[in-house]
Amino acid sequence: MSGFFETHKATLDKALEAARTRDYWSPYPEIASGKIYGETAKDDGAAAFKSTLGKPFELGGHPTDGGTVGMEQSPYGLELGITYPKVSPALLLETAQGASKSWAKASVEDRVGVCMEILHRLNKHSFEMASAVSHTTGQAFMMAFQAGGPHAQDRGLEAVTYAYAEMTRTPSSAVWTKPQGKHDPLVLQKQFRVVPRGVALVIGCATFPTWNSYPGLFASLATGNAVIVKPHPGAILPLALTVKIGREVLAEAGFDPNILLLGADEPGSEITKQLVCDPAIRIIDFTGSNAFGDWVRENAARDTQIYTEEAGVNSIVIASTDNFRGMCSNIAFSLSLYSGQMCTAPQNIYVPESGIETDEGHKDFDAVAEGIRISVDKLLGDPDRAAGVCGAIASDATLKRVESAAGLGAVLRPSSTLDRLQGARTATPVILKLRESESDAHHQEQFGPISFVVAVADANEGIAKASALAAEKGAITASIYATDDETLDHAADAFAEAGVSLSCNLTGGVFVNQSAAFSDYHVTGANPAGNAALTDAAFVANRFRIAATRRHLAA
Amino acid sequence: MSGFFETHKATLDKALEAARTRDYWSPYPEIASGKIYGETAKDDGAAAFKSTLGKPFELGGHPTDGGTVGMEQSPYGLELGITYPKVSPALLLETAQGASKSWAKASVEDRVGVCMEILHRLNKHSFEMASAVSHTTGQAFMMAFQAGGPHAQDRGLEAVTYAYAEMTRTPSSAVWTKPQGKHDPLVLQKQFRVVPRGVALVIGCATFPTWNSYPGLFASLATGNAVIVKPHPGAILPLALTVKIGREVLAEAGFDPNILLLGADEPGSEITKQLVCDPAIRIIDFTGSNAFGDWVRENAARDTQIYTEEAGVNSIVIASTDNFRGMCSNIAFSLSLYSGQMCTAPQNIYVPESGIETDEGHKDFDAVAEGIRISVDKLLGDPDRAAGVCGAIASDATLKRVESAAGLGAVLRPSSTLDRLQGARTATPVILKLRESESDAHHQEQFGPISFVVAVADANEGIAKASALAAEKGAITASIYATDDETLDHAADAFAEAGVSLSCNLTGGVFVNQSAAFSDYHVTGANPAGNAALTDAAFVANRFRIAATRRHLAA
Repeated sequence: MSGFFETHKATLDKALEAARTRDYWSPYPEIASGKIYGETAKDDGAAAFKSTLGKPFELGGHPTDGGTVGMEQSPYGLELGITYPKVSPALLLETAQGASKSWAKASVEDRVGVCMEILHRLNKHSFEMASAVSHTTGQAFMMAFQAGGPHAQDRGLEAVTYAYAEMTRTPSSAVWTKPQGKHDPLVLQKQFRVVPRGVALVIGCATFPTWNSYPGLFASLATGNAVIVKPHPGAILPLALTVKIGREVLAEAGFDPNILLLGADEPGSEITKQLVCDPAIRIIDFTGSNAFGDWVRENAARDTQIYTEEAGVNSIVIASTDNFRGMCSNIAFSLSLYSGQMCTAPQNIYVPESGIETDEGHKDFDAVAEGIRISVDKLLGDPDRAAGVCGAIASDATLKRVESAAGLGAVLRPSSTLDRLQGARTATPVILKLRESESDAHHQEQFGPISFVVAVADANEGIAKASALAAEKGAITASIYATDDETLDHAADAFAEAGVSLSCNLTGGVFVNQSAAFSDYHVTGANPAGNAALTDAAFVANRFRIAATRRHLAA
Repeated sequence: MSGFFETHKATLDKALEAARTRDYWSPYPEIASGKIYGETAKDDGAAAFKSTLGKPFELGGHPTDGGTVGMEQSPYGLELGITYPKVSPALLLETAQGASKSWAKASVEDRVGVCMEILHRLNKHSFEMASAVSHTTGQAFMMAFQAGGPHAQDRGLEAVTYAYAEMTRTPSSAVWTKPQGKHDPLVLQKQFRVVPRGVALVIGCATFPTWNSYPGLFASLATGNAVIVKPHPGAILPLALTVKIGREVLAEAGFDPNILLLGADEPGSEITKQLVCDPAIRIIDFTGSNAFGDWVRENAARDTQIYTEEAGVNSIVIASTDNFRGMCSNIAFSLSLYSGQMCTAPQNIYVPESGIETDEGHKDFDAVAEGIRISVDKLLGDPDRAAGVCGAIASDATLKRVESAAGLGAVLRPSSTLDRLQGARTATPVILKLRESESDAHHQEQFGPISFVVAVADANEGIAKASALAAEKGAITASIYATDDETLDHAADAFAEAGVSLSCNLTGGVFVNQSAAFSDYHVTGANPAGNAALTDAAFVANRFRIAATRRHLAA
């Protein structure tokens, strides 16, 4: 129909292969280079971003009840002043239901082609997206480029890839021939078609508006559902840009652009709950707090499929290391990156109270803690680098949490603001020391740049406490440092049982926070940090159903 | 470990292929012949069944709190007097949780091998199973043999096949190599493991204790979950036999037999609700009423995965036919088979009030209705054949429903008892006539041998009413008779949108009630008749999760 499927078929084939081998692969370069994206791409992106400021965002014929909404504030202090069409939940639902019929009837290839073209165009807008993500979430520009652009696009493509694989797993037609002994066989011609669920809701978060939303958005869209995107009121622009591009591609391909809708709102008058409760919503993808996740589960209609990424407490256990400096540097970066506001950032670092063996000899508990502190100070010692690593703080609540964290243990490293980001909301990591047996401050998620070096009897206690906490409160990542296979294997078993994936002995350029599309499953779905993984078959298989027809085969 | 996987690998490969092509395939012969099952198989099966009567069922070391339960009654009047170990929900849960750990650690191949060996042995017991199913459900012996034996085994194997495909879709290990420009690439060694959910509950039904339970039972077992089987109190024996064989195979393979448990109970003191509510239950497979399905959804723990097959109203729409006799005979058999107690049996037959065109010329509404009545009378005219087709009625409630059905419309054919089955609870089909606009008796499921020939304005109204009813109340099957492609295509669209698979112009040896493993998806999951299909990827993919470890690859 549109030719988009043919255009992107080779990429899809590579994506299918990558999902099978789980080797590194990406069609969207993560390097923000003019050589790749075009010499003017950076300036064009900056200009495009600037042109959206201080006015209503142009969403090309998007339905509205009249009026606008939008109160986003840049954590960097830049005046945004962008507004979006105000749309009531009733109008969103009615429009989406109307649009969903034609989308449901589109072929698998047409839908997948449209999704891949949207991702392709989003990739071309990666510089503009970087500014949009940076000025809503507080991510530093380079991280906003990567996580908000190519890496989010990777995760979107991954979802489309799994959706395609799942939808084409059943043949569209089959002949069924059942022998009947001496009689003629029974022969039936069967046809199978994908039946989408209807209307899907994607609830975005404040810190990774694209990365965390694209998997659900594209999984639902590819499988034939109309999608209502409900951004966090603090991070609308990145998803408004996404919806705008999506609607353009839909229209170009001859489909109703209202298959993809934006439900923007403002703090204090959010429309999320009304949308969640409506039985017309058949799929919900939610990223956010456990408390609101519980609310969604309790209030969504009975057969609404719900996919969540919620919160948890991520841990590192240090048993021993043959690269003490590499370990400390690696941990320091993980604690500092985006000021600890990643769902994958470690919070608790369990260290035996008697210390550990290292390549630099025995280090007692305090020396290990000190090594981490020094590495953080070193990393953030250069003001420009500090700004580039930490970025800004997305919300006042996080800043307040950092301020009050000092009372939670012995302060190993106090938080401070960032010199290079005057006028921005910033906070470098605060690190506290405490004993496992004497505190439970670290048994909750302390979202933001707050971490604990926790004294435990030995590494096994560290593994036991960290994995038990993961099973109880959830965890998205876990990390272990050990020089012996026995400890590594024991940790692998314990964390697998708690439903957490484990990184071992990271001392170089890979960080526990990072999760690579097509290779790492982000969240397992096996503990309270979320009920789904990005992306596996379970994430897509139930977004549609199969209906068949059968008849005797004409002779 | 046990060698079972190697023994059954060739069968598994064929099953994987059948699930892809969706052609006819079965490794379990449906013909109850001594040539296939052994000359003494029938007598041996009868003797084995007889030996279970009037005494406690031997379940080989099954946990019990002491005492027995069991009040099954044969619809054929045979005194059963079989009892089963009484086990409290607390003991079932504690035992299953204990056993689940070792099962979770078993390899995919070991678990799949055990499941396939259980199915293989169940197949050898098909004659004994036929008696067990017949004398609990009322199914005639031949149907009990097929549906309770080979066809149920097919569905179990199908679930194991999908589980195997899904668990092996992710490689157990992978190397991830990310180029770093002029620097050395980042290289990680990754390992992926299947993490089962924990303890699964399978809630059986009264009419198809094995066919409807095996998919969930084997899907959960193959994916590493311990399984508690909670049979309907009226149909325990077939599942007790299943659990017994399963426990024998588990023990032979070196596993804890308590990985598979039987939770038998009695009317009035059912243990189902206590099991459903326990948060230790992570997966529930339920076959039964919409009302209890709702209860399960409302009361199960928040992240328990629930798969249901509930009830609905199945319809036939007659627009035209080029084989009037074939059509009437086919419908008559579908109405009569197991006295309409199949979840796939048609209830409403929509016929245009002005009649239809046929190969015998125009037939008015009454003539179509009369054609169906005559075919039922003819089919059941031979008393032996009638007994073999209809079997007995599973419950008194169904019999009472048949008795009171006469008031729901104009009686086209009254129900009667079956001469050949003295002492049994029997009822042949009652067929009523009514007008769509003047009644809503047919808008509910009237479970049992109760059907309605419904006058509608035309075929399109029939399609509209039948598909709307399916969307609202659920439906598992739909059937259309039409000689033109336009009507067939329109019906295919309408029923697909209502989430029902459609059979077209069945006039020979295939009946709308029948659903073939590896080819027909039983239930779509897209209307209130159930939230899952037997069997697709969605049915298995979320019974386990994947946890990974990653580390730098040793040079």
